[in-house]
Amino acid sequence: FWSVVFLCVAPKVSLSRLGELRNRAKFIGRSCKEVKDRYGQAEDGLYYLTTSTGVVYQTFCDMTTAGGGWTLVASVHEDNIYGKCMNGDRWTSQQGNNANWPQGEGNWANRKTFGTVEAATDDDFKNPGYYDIDAEDMSVWHRRFLHLYGGNLYYLFHRYPVEYNVGKHLSDNGPSIPIVYDLGDKESTKMFYSPNTKGETEGGFISFRAINHERAATAICSGVKPKGGNVEHYCIGGGGFFPEGNPLQCGDFTGFAWSGYGTHIGFSVSKQMLESAVLLFYR
Amino acid sequence: FWSVVFLCVAPKVSLSRLGELRNRAKFIGRSCKEVKDRYGQAEDGLYYLTTSTGVVYQTFCDMTTAGGGWTLVASVHEDNIYGKCMNGDRWTSQQGNNANWPQGEGNWANRKTFGTVEAATDDDFKNPGYYDIDAEDMSVWHRRFLHLYGGNLYYLFHRYPVEYNVGKHLSDNGPSIPIVYDLGDKESTKMFYSPNTKGETEGGFISFRAINHERAATAICSGVKPKGGNVEHYCIGGGGFFPEGNPLQCGDFTGFAWSGYGTHIGFSVSKQMLESAVLLFYR
Amino acid sequence: FWSVVFLCVAPKVSLSRLGELRNRAKFIGRSCKEVKDRYGQAEDGLYYLTTSTGVVYQTFCDMTTAGGGWTLVASVHEDNIYGKCMNGDRWTSQQGNNANWPQGEGNWANRKTFGTVEAATDDDFKNPGYYDIDAEDMSVWHRRFLHLYGGNLYYLFHRYPVEYNVGKHLSDNGPSIPIVYDLGDKESTKMFYSPNTKGETEGGFISFRAINHERAATAICSGVKPKGGNVEHYCIGGGGFFPEGNPLQCGDFTGFAWSGYGTHIGFSVSKQMLESAVLLFYR
Repeated sequence: FWSVVFLCVAPKVSLSRLGELRNRAKFIGRSCKEVKDRYGQAEDGLYYLTTSTGVVYQTFCDMTTAGGGWTLVASVHEDNIYGKCMNGDRWTSQQGNNANWPQGEGNWANRKTFGTVEAATDDDFKNPGYYDIDAEDMSVWHRRFLHLYGGNLYYLFHRYPVEYNVGKHLSDNGPSIPIVYDLGDKESTKMFYSPNTKGETEGGFISFRAINHERAATAICSGVKPKGGNVEHYCIGGGGFFPEGNPLQCGDFTGFAWSGYGTHIGFSVSKQMLESAVLLFYR
Repeated sequence: FWSVVFLCVAPKVSLSRLGELRNRAKFIGRSCKEVKDRYGQAEDGLYYLTTSTGVVYQTFCDMTTAGGGWTLVASVHEDNIYGKCMNGDRWTSQQGNNANWPQGEGNWANRKTFGTVEAATDDDFKNPGYYDIDAEDMSVWHRRFLHLYGGNLYYLFHRYPVEYNVGKHLSDNGPSIPIVYDLGDKESTKMFYSPNTKGETEGGFISFRAINHERAATAICSGVKPKGGNVEHYCIGGGGFFPEGNPLQCGDFTGFAWSGYGTHIGFSVSKQMLESAVLLFYR
Repeated sequence: FWSVVFLCVAPKVSLSRLGELRNRAKFIGRSCKEVKDRYGQAEDGLYYLTTSTGVVYQTFCDMTTAGGGWTLVASVHEDNIYGKCMNGDRWTSQQGNNANWPQGEGNWANRKTFGTVEAATDDDFKNPGYYDIDAEDMSVWHRRFLHLYGGNLYYLFHRYPVEYNVGKHLSDNGPSIPIVYDLGDKESTKMFYSPNTKGETEGGFISFRAINHERAATAICSGVKPKGGNVEHYCIGGGGFFPEGNPLQCGDFTGFAWSGYGTHIGFSVSKQMLESAVLLFYR
């Protein structure tokens, strides 16, 4: 089991609907889990967290789903599928499709932060929790897995760099972890992806550092495990270079509009998915 | 009457001159109006505000002009009139002039925020007040108008999207609202714009979502109401595509340097205006 | 003597190693010097500072080196030496190499801020201390020099604009100030730069607004004083246009990879320096 909950295809308004959110400056912790455990806070909403060095930030805590204590640490949003590795492609490259910059922005494995919690469904988002929250703050049945990878995505992507030409498809992919669904199931997740890639994926997993046929690396395949090398159609984020159809695959949502914008035919995902944001939580 | 006060052609140093600004962490409210009414704060300066979800931010409150209680929520600044929809054109597009991205950055109608209050006259600026402050926080004679458009610019631009090809000049423009001048008057405002457009504008208004001859949409015409379709010479911000002279009009200050940088001849505005920032306040 | 301490070639992990950093919200001051003097704080770590207008921010205080009281106000990091004045070149230009935009981003002499303290070694960084901290906060033997230039880099670069075509190499350079080494010495500093420029520099100085043969302006030469006009190989940051080899020199680390990436031959610096961040502290 894996401690990242994906609310993929999140409705644009989801965060603003989440109850009577209040400023809770007194209940500060290293993670939502700590806030919940230490202070008994049970309401969804914004809380103050602190990093180990004392940087204070606000983020959203899901205190009710599956036991609560989930910290929103990041979101991935494709602002413009026609802009290929341009401004706004922070999880890939904002400097074009360039083989000389194989890791691109490198935000999967650095301490840069961007975006805001209130715009997390409108924009890319990454807060200090991404690199600061560790296995100490996890519940028991999650700790075992995270222990292997250092406790968070920051360390996972240090071990499995998201970088062009780092390896071969399937053989050099990062880990695929079984997931528990809070919403939907294996089949409903696959439905959102493109028709042509259904046969290439296995539902019920979250996969990391998936490599495509042309040796380009993507970062996260939400809900599926790749069984082939067309990963750019169902995995998000990536390094700084995608050779095939240069620069068509270069962007936060890679080749999600390969057969047209939101057409849901061929290699294109649904419009609903193309315009969504992928939210990442830790616990 | 309209509740946005435009301090157009603001001197670069204006914010730093505004009195003995102090940290006022105790007097927190949803808007400057609330801070003034609830705590009797009467000094211009930085105050802490909070959104409905508890995001805390600092911004400048004008507590003295026309009754006070004005919240600085945004500013529009053209960093480089030669950079056509490049980095820094946050109120238009930072990804070039592109018909496939008709709404561009979309910042007129999303929850992204950027810039800082102290750099508001040097840089684009947008804080959570832009989308969070609503008619509850307005004085009586303003409430009536804002009620029509949902209480702030965020909702107004949801109703009137700033997007290429959304309609025709004049017939599909958004609202033009009569304004009350705190400084200057109808004629002095028009003087700053280009000579060639004086006949095309009527002073004493603020106008929204003005469309040009080529179906490009601009966001705000400060101080004037368009009477024709050359709106790119006196209206700011916009969507992601301006067909005429591609890409010359694409940028936060659109076609303000059409007849040379700050020449104030033909279709060019004065140097003073080109280098200014437009500050937006709510009450 | 000069009050800016350069920790050039800072190890990527340096900030996170710096002791038991704690949130110290009670000990607020205008600078680390003030926090140290007023509250007797002697531990390295993050502290809250405030600007004169009341903007509150966190930054790193070095409370132990050479008497302590050093405020981290900025860092310069080259994210992609192959991206010539593209995204991420905040200390130069993010809009290409362009003679029509001679000052580029202008961040050396404006109030924009960017980056975060925890990512200061991974990313460009500039906080309000850059423009807010002044000579009042300096120790006696530093005050004399800073007085000449207005108390900080913000004022220094107002007096010596970092702008293409502002003058001629050597004759129009800004000041070169003798430095005291906390680590390393004249010779070890020069070793990091390229072999071909050793004869052109004199160690033991920090220099500002150094101009090259082609009239391009760089911002800071850390550890050296130029004796010629190839300053793009040992000075960082700059204006918006570098004529020679257009656009090869345009970027935060200018021509540091002129003879290949990290080769340390010809005009290239070492890989260690190319991948470092330059941290700027005030006192």
